[in-house]
Amino acid sequence: MSSDGRVLGGLLGREPVVVSAGIGLLADALGDQAARVTKVDWRPPPAGLMPALRRLAADPRREAANADAVSALVGASPQLVDVKPASEAVHLARGEFLHAGPPIDWASASGPLRGALIGAILLERLADSPEEAGLLAERGGISLEPCHHRGAVGPMAGVVSPSMPMFVLADASHGGTAFCTLNEGLGKVLRYGAYGPEVIDRLRWMQQVLAPSLRAAVAAHGPVDVRTLIAQALQMGDEGHNRNRAGTSLLLRELLPNLLECGIPNADLAAVARFIGGNDHFFLNLVMPAGKLAADAARGIAGSTMVVAMARNGTEFGIQTAGTGNRWFTAPATVPDGLYLGDFGPGDANPDIGDSTITETSGIGGFAMASAPAIVSFIGGQAKDALEATRSMYEITLAEHRAYQIPILDFRGSPTGIDVTRVVRTGLLPMVNTGIAGRIAGTGQVGAGLVKPPFEVFAAATRALAEAAPDL
Amino acid sequence: MSSDGRVLGGLLGREPVVVSAGIGLLADALGDQAARVTKVDWRPPPAGLMPALRRLAADPRREAANADAVSALVGASPQLVDVKPASEAVHLARGEFLHAGPPIDWASASGPLRGALIGAILLERLADSPEEAGLLAERGGISLEPCHHRGAVGPMAGVVSPSMPMFVLADASHGGTAFCTLNEGLGKVLRYGAYGPEVIDRLRWMQQVLAPSLRAAVAAHGPVDVRTLIAQALQMGDEGHNRNRAGTSLLLRELLPNLLECGIPNADLAAVARFIGGNDHFFLNLVMPAGKLAADAARGIAGSTMVVAMARNGTEFGIQTAGTGNRWFTAPATVPDGLYLGDFGPGDANPDIGDSTITETSGIGGFAMASAPAIVSFIGGQAKDALEATRSMYEITLAEHRAYQIPILDFRGSPTGIDVTRVVRTGLLPMVNTGIAGRIAGTGQVGAGLVKPPFEVFAAATRALAEAAPDL
Repeated sequence: MSSDGRVLGGLLGREPVVVSAGIGLLADALGDQAARVTKVDWRPPPAGLMPALRRLAADPRREAANADAVSALVGASPQLVDVKPASEAVHLARGEFLHAGPPIDWASASGPLRGALIGAILLERLADSPEEAGLLAERGGISLEPCHHRGAVGPMAGVVSPSMPMFVLADASHGGTAFCTLNEGLGKVLRYGAYGPEVIDRLRWMQQVLAPSLRAAVAAHGPVDVRTLIAQALQMGDEGHNRNRAGTSLLLRELLPNLLECGIPNADLAAVARFIGGNDHFFLNLVMPAGKLAADAARGIAGSTMVVAMARNGTEFGIQTAGTGNRWFTAPATVPDGLYLGDFGPGDANPDIGDSTITETSGIGGFAMASAPAIVSFIGGQAKDALEATRSMYEITLAEHRAYQIPILDFRGSPTGIDVTRVVRTGLLPMVNTGIAGRIAGTGQVGAGLVKPPFEVFAAATRALAEAAPDL
Repeated sequence: MSSDGRVLGGLLGREPVVVSAGIGLLADALGDQAARVTKVDWRPPPAGLMPALRRLAADPRREAANADAVSALVGASPQLVDVKPASEAVHLARGEFLHAGPPIDWASASGPLRGALIGAILLERLADSPEEAGLLAERGGISLEPCHHRGAVGPMAGVVSPSMPMFVLADASHGGTAFCTLNEGLGKVLRYGAYGPEVIDRLRWMQQVLAPSLRAAVAAHGPVDVRTLIAQALQMGDEGHNRNRAGTSLLLRELLPNLLECGIPNADLAAVARFIGGNDHFFLNLVMPAGKLAADAARGIAGSTMVVAMARNGTEFGIQTAGTGNRWFTAPATVPDGLYLGDFGPGDANPDIGDSTITETSGIGGFAMASAPAIVSFIGGQAKDALEATRSMYEITLAEHRAYQIPILDFRGSPTGIDVTRVVRTGLLPMVNTGIAGRIAGTGQVGAGLVKPPFEVFAAATRALAEAAPDL
């Protein structure tokens, strides 16, 4: 064999693997030729951010701070310990309301947030009609505060009022507490901005029957290990954000013997079983506070560039980092790309809304998409896109979660702990799964899909972290 | 660019895909060089079988017969409709016992089958001690018959006695009926050959509490659509044979409201919930009769070379085909390759046993391994091995199941309907997931793993089918 032949044989003996960065033309051409191309979707950081990135790269605290932050996040042990009204759980007084995302006032609130607030005002009997409720809010008759500021998280509009029951989760590792309302189901529900009589009636039934039943069952069961339930669900086709069918089934299975023994009348228990059994999203409202507990365990670590909150109020997308205290970095929220229900379309969609991005913040949801390939089909994707979505998130995260594993990636831990500097350096944005709310107050859910946060929030956080870094 | 350069570029622009058949040396050498090699594990059919294969290839009935057979199999609609004692369900009289696999007598029975029969004799109070029970069986004091001969299937030893409760499934498409006992859980249980007092006590509790509760819940619920539950479970990490965590959870969730309303005391219901909730295999005993119904719908189609039963009695592995009536083709059963519990090892293992191969016969179990990559880790495999296991089964099957889909293969239907001639032509044997019983009567389960049926049974079926083919 000639020398050329050996070279050719050597090249052909191995599968060519091409890593393509930057301009897509080369990657597309190779892809057309059926070569295996890993698109890393890299783009150079904006020149204006280079000084901040250099300053952070030189920060001697950073490596240890990020290791501490992600270790705290991954080490959290969220347990469901109680169910009680928001007035007790997060000390909401009459006239006080929580909402998803960074701070916002009524004047800037989008349709679904206004709709949910109108519904909550009616639930609390502060007004007798939606019109009256809207006027009350408009003239400043209610007080608004982010869920995150009270240790809570809320899906979609995330509105919490004093009488609403909340799950109480405790972190057995670090001692924190986090809260979330109970999931109402799909369609015309408060969290998507609907406030009709059926919405209010359902919320009252949840207060009167659902919450006391669950409270009694949890008391009889003792702390419910939510971390283990999430870990199992990720091995059963859930990603914990848009798909929670396994988690919901496992929760019901776990609490069932105690529900049966807690002294609640069987007719009520049967209604509870039908309500939870009929709502594959029920478990989301436990995954979210579990993520909140984990992320909160990593707060306040000077020098850490890890994200501890991503949240949207329907107008703005905001993030917080471990190294910048309670400061929000915000930018306008975008509209998700998704599958629409019935006759709805993109024109009906509100910009991105909700605290449920705490799932991605804590390493699951869109980051664990490889566990739930069904979800990428929402936007016409295939199983390989789900694998690729998870693989790409390893580029912007600090660790692999030791409890949350992905079977099809040979039980590799899910990518956990977003580093804002990696986002800014690579231009790779976190992959977020989400529901889509109708933009008109009162509409409800119009779809579900995928969304990416605005780059600007990571840029702003990077600049602030750099300013806080010590001079060398 | 020179002409040679263009050729080289063209070759390198595409990933080399090598299909390697027969001798493994070439494939191993390519594998060592990190090339992507699809091993199809092909071997030429034994020369003695070529006349039979040629005769079957020329049979003008065959294509339509196989299309009819697999269409009946895939089109079955198994529903759980009742729970009742074997004496009513399969008309077992006192002293009659069913067992897994092809026909066998006490003298040829392996340890776990003998153990299970001893336990069932004690359960039926035909003897007062294990010794007495063994003597009764040895002197021909009991009558033995395969489950398959009475429309039933039994996991592992598959022993059924008159007082044992059975699930009753009906096929809403074709009108058939199939039966299976209720799953006892893991470890020291009758189906693995254990017969101690705790085994018998548990079986009595199943008769007195579990079965009446489930019977009442099913009556209140109406027919339970087992096909839909299996389809959902395959999208939740189950493959329906060795992993049924999702199916068990979904079944409990489905029946829960009716369990609560059926008038059974709550203390009993709580015990039922703990028993089912504590046994991830509970749903297997519904998957099996669902598979039996589907396979039975395809029986008795002259000219069809499709397998309608694979079953093991602990001594022999037997199959039946759609075109050969109730005739069994048998060969000695082999010992599975697997993971052993505690201090057990391969030396403790009984040869392959049980009717649970009806799952693979109906297109799931080992054939849907891609849905449950956790299972290949039993024998040190990786996720890609699970994908490859399923992909290779398309080589020996007639159709893709339209209800049983595999998310990670972009919802491709699972490979369904084994064609004995494809097995014989390719040498590719069905991939079977299984539990492993201790070879000594009374031991119980010692492990779980993978096994392949003996080639000889497919060869024998091929010869018999060829003999039955018309002369041209």
